[in-house]
Amino acid sequence: MIQPSSLLLIPLIAFFLQSVNALKVNKEYNRPQFHLTPEKGWMNDPNGLWYDRKDKLWHAYYQHNPNSTVFESPISWGHSTSKDLIKWEYKGVAIEAEEEYKDNQGIYSGSVVIDRHNTSGFFNKSQDPEQRVVALYTLNTPTAQTQELAYSVDGGFSFIKYEKNPIIDVHTTQQRDPKVFWHEGTEKWIMVLAKAQEYKVEIWSSPNLKDWEFESFFTSGISGYQYECAGIFELPIENPKSDDPDTKWVLVLAVNPGAPMGGSVNQYFIGDFDGKAFYANDHVTRIQDYGKDYYAFQSFENTDSEDGAIGLAWASNWQYAIVVPATNHRHSQSLARKHTLKYVNVNPENNQLVLVQTPVLETKETKKNSSLKSWEVINQYDLEDTNLTSETFVATDFNSERNSSGVLDFNLTFTVAPESADYFVININSQIVQGTQETIQATFDPQQTTWFIDRSTQNDFQRKTPYYQERSSVYHQYASKDDDDIKTYHVYGIVDRNILELYFNNGEMTATNTFFFSQNKIPSSISIATDTEEEVFTIESLTIRELGFKCGCEK
Amino acid sequence: MIQPSSLLLIPLIAFFLQSVNALKVNKEYNRPQFHLTPEKGWMNDPNGLWYDRKDKLWHAYYQHNPNSTVFESPISWGHSTSKDLIKWEYKGVAIEAEEEYKDNQGIYSGSVVIDRHNTSGFFNKSQDPEQRVVALYTLNTPTAQTQELAYSVDGGFSFIKYEKNPIIDVHTTQQRDPKVFWHEGTEKWIMVLAKAQEYKVEIWSSPNLKDWEFESFFTSGISGYQYECAGIFELPIENPKSDDPDTKWVLVLAVNPGAPMGGSVNQYFIGDFDGKAFYANDHVTRIQDYGKDYYAFQSFENTDSEDGAIGLAWASNWQYAIVVPATNHRHSQSLARKHTLKYVNVNPENNQLVLVQTPVLETKETKKNSSLKSWEVINQYDLEDTNLTSETFVATDFNSERNSSGVLDFNLTFTVAPESADYFVININSQIVQGTQETIQATFDPQQTTWFIDRSTQNDFQRKTPYYQERSSVYHQYASKDDDDIKTYHVYGIVDRNILELYFNNGEMTATNTFFFSQNKIPSSISIATDTEEEVFTIESLTIRELGFKCGCEK
Repeated sequence: MIQPSSLLLIPLIAFFLQSVNALKVNKEYNRPQFHLTPEKGWMNDPNGLWYDRKDKLWHAYYQHNPNSTVFESPISWGHSTSKDLIKWEYKGVAIEAEEEYKDNQGIYSGSVVIDRHNTSGFFNKSQDPEQRVVALYTLNTPTAQTQELAYSVDGGFSFIKYEKNPIIDVHTTQQRDPKVFWHEGTEKWIMVLAKAQEYKVEIWSSPNLKDWEFESFFTSGISGYQYECAGIFELPIENPKSDDPDTKWVLVLAVNPGAPMGGSVNQYFIGDFDGKAFYANDHVTRIQDYGKDYYAFQSFENTDSEDGAIGLAWASNWQYAIVVPATNHRHSQSLARKHTLKYVNVNPENNQLVLVQTPVLETKETKKNSSLKSWEVINQYDLEDTNLTSETFVATDFNSERNSSGVLDFNLTFTVAPESADYFVININSQIVQGTQETIQATFDPQQTTWFIDRSTQNDFQRKTPYYQERSSVYHQYASKDDDDIKTYHVYGIVDRNILELYFNNGEMTATNTFFFSQNKIPSSISIATDTEEEVFTIESLTIRELGFKCGCEK
Repeated sequence: MIQPSSLLLIPLIAFFLQSVNALKVNKEYNRPQFHLTPEKGWMNDPNGLWYDRKDKLWHAYYQHNPNSTVFESPISWGHSTSKDLIKWEYKGVAIEAEEEYKDNQGIYSGSVVIDRHNTSGFFNKSQDPEQRVVALYTLNTPTAQTQELAYSVDGGFSFIKYEKNPIIDVHTTQQRDPKVFWHEGTEKWIMVLAKAQEYKVEIWSSPNLKDWEFESFFTSGISGYQYECAGIFELPIENPKSDDPDTKWVLVLAVNPGAPMGGSVNQYFIGDFDGKAFYANDHVTRIQDYGKDYYAFQSFENTDSEDGAIGLAWASNWQYAIVVPATNHRHSQSLARKHTLKYVNVNPENNQLVLVQTPVLETKETKKNSSLKSWEVINQYDLEDTNLTSETFVATDFNSERNSSGVLDFNLTFTVAPESADYFVININSQIVQGTQETIQATFDPQQTTWFIDRSTQNDFQRKTPYYQERSSVYHQYASKDDDDIKTYHVYGIVDRNILELYFNNGEMTATNTFFFSQNKIPSSISIATDTEEEVFTIESLTIRELGFKCGCEK
């Protein structure tokens, strides 16, 4: 175990992109900057994610109570918008229960579709076809969960509830989270619903978003206590085999509680969808993210198919969501991720389709028009072809004279000599406050080809809270192997105040974990070290960056 | 969080079964007493488990190197026997590689069958039909894994390798762990094999144990890096529904690495078996044990069907198996467990078949003949109908004047008032050594109906070892609910030196975790406490016992 007491800089190709300015950043230690958070109050599941092609604006709604930092009534749909999926503007509450029912009704999770051709009849010519917004959600009451509908004639900022709600009522308290999309093949709207405690993903169809017919259900994998937040979408295969189609369908499914790793988890299945039923290719269940904090994933509606599916997940776990430290808000969403499918060597004898996830730091639109992009690189550190040993370790020193933005990312490609039993540690270090520095760690063990994540800090909260699991792990097969059995691995990580997202081998596996430094410390440096004297590990390439918002230049 | 600094005894119905004698127990702090351990050296998977009906003797073999405490060549089959499944006698190595190949060959996992009718032709009249022992195992070499056979003419103490080995050779390094049984319906021997990296459970059949034919394969659930140690057995259903058969088949499957909870895990599937293929009832994957230390489960051959299936699992995890503290041996098996199937309310709307596991503290034979039973109750503490509050908590004080045996169990039935947000903690406390006492904890949270297990101790090892996950959790639905929404739960726990096995609701879920107190401390007391002043928790019944071996009375 390595705990470097002083950080040694190896300034091989280190350079500063800009001078050290005072940063205009929010100093709330537990408010991620590049991750969507509500201005105040509680947030859980992402809802109604869609992209406005006319105004080039990303809309995210979410389960929200602006006046409480725990999950309690009234739960509404909060709303935020973004030009680049990184900087979000809080727009307040978009859909809420009627005033008289607020204590007994919740506007629970659901989705948004663009009813371009006005199948619903809610729109007229004054609404641009790209802004004919229909939201479908679950109305929760103490005695029932019904599926309801509301539409927006102002581009998704306010909603009018359908007067003939509910659109689906099967007289249960356990049917929820409608995720709707248009299916070209059958020319119908498809709704995917969780019949939570029967462990059924229900598939319904409709010509007009108002009248729904039950088609089929799907059950598989880990069941836990209940199903939630199911979804189906079609994805391109990056490297299709010759007898393959170019795309496959993915069914995502949230389970809580009862995840094998504790509490909340998202799993996925790969298969085919014909407009009536989902057919899994195999009976294998796959975990969407191996961290503790990735739940209730939803994909954006109305993105271009070339983008794959872009989506968000809630970055917490019901095991401890209401008890983790909070100031005036609680929880964030994950970074937006792009999803595709790819054949990957999951072990030396098996090449399988897996979901590949990439953080969306730059969208198609921000690439075309950089004024849409809200962020920039404040500092950057690069390294190539360097042996990592106990004598030579790597550490950034961006922030010796000022505070960090608290947003750091690293992109590491490394090789491991055969038969190595040593390991190395990526340390994510806090500021020094009152003489103390804290570190969370990701340790790579080549014998097990596994990353061990330790998010323990000095924060009293974690010692007092049995719910909070400090350590987790991700098995991570090598990306490639050369003739001499030297194995190559990749890892990309982004640390944003109190959340760490790790993407292994270009996103074949991911792990998302929140953490809580004490004394409101924020992350300020990254170091990588090993205690082996042998030349076991070679850093082929490493970039560490400090990221921040552009200062006053947002349009 | 409750950390009682002084233990208060509530002596409602506490009594001592016998006077405080000096205990004849082994004081190795990390050698469980009631769990199978090798006299010295390394142990992993259980192998060749069988019951000798003639001599009323339980045989267990296991992956073993008597001369090393890590997994390294040569790996042989170690051998232990027991009259009661609790006290085991070490018999040394039963099957090993030929002397000249020892460094390159391993006798890997496999099973034993009783060839009562001499289908193999290895036996003659001088061998009692109940002791015609045939072992089938994987011979591992650097270039191949083949399935091989050996037989015993002395009741399983020594083996003769079949001269025409291998019996199966498909030219792979990734086919292993034959588990064989006799299938009445087809009157054939069935072998279940892991085609490890292809994620296939292979099913083969044979008339004579020597000539094998491939029948089918099965893939489902969590796949991780590789499959290992598959098995199939038929189990009685405790509460069959009217349209049900009385039995179903279970397929068990070990996966390592890549378990969702990290490293090694056993999952199971419920279905039907016709002698050719296994047909899962559903595509749901179920976890066999929610602890970190339960792997490579195997069922005993030749038990009575009324016993259900009795089996053992290796009580460790490949994530840290070679680094946890050890003295002259490393690792134990789990307690022998009896397995049946039962319809259980997995949530309020769903009643499903699940595997029910019961620790075998008393066998059919020891019930008939108590001289076969090796253990006794040293101390016992009983409590009934008591409210647990911050004012009144429960603690044993068995051992104020002497050392404990280090083996304690508890059987707790409790109720929880509706809507409670409080929780209570079961503390398993060590001896006091040099003024310090350590505690591991199982915390029950009724809001989440979840147990949170915290095995962190003061042992330096755990802080230095990123592999070692201190905290885990088990979701645990109530056993029953009354008209006033008061919920009843059960938990049985057994602590044996450095292993804690928890059985929830009479074994509907289990969690097995090893732990390592510092300074060679052993467990010596149990306390249960809450910090709520309200009468939320009622202990309906509680028995805490200190267990030990009978002193010099073993036959």
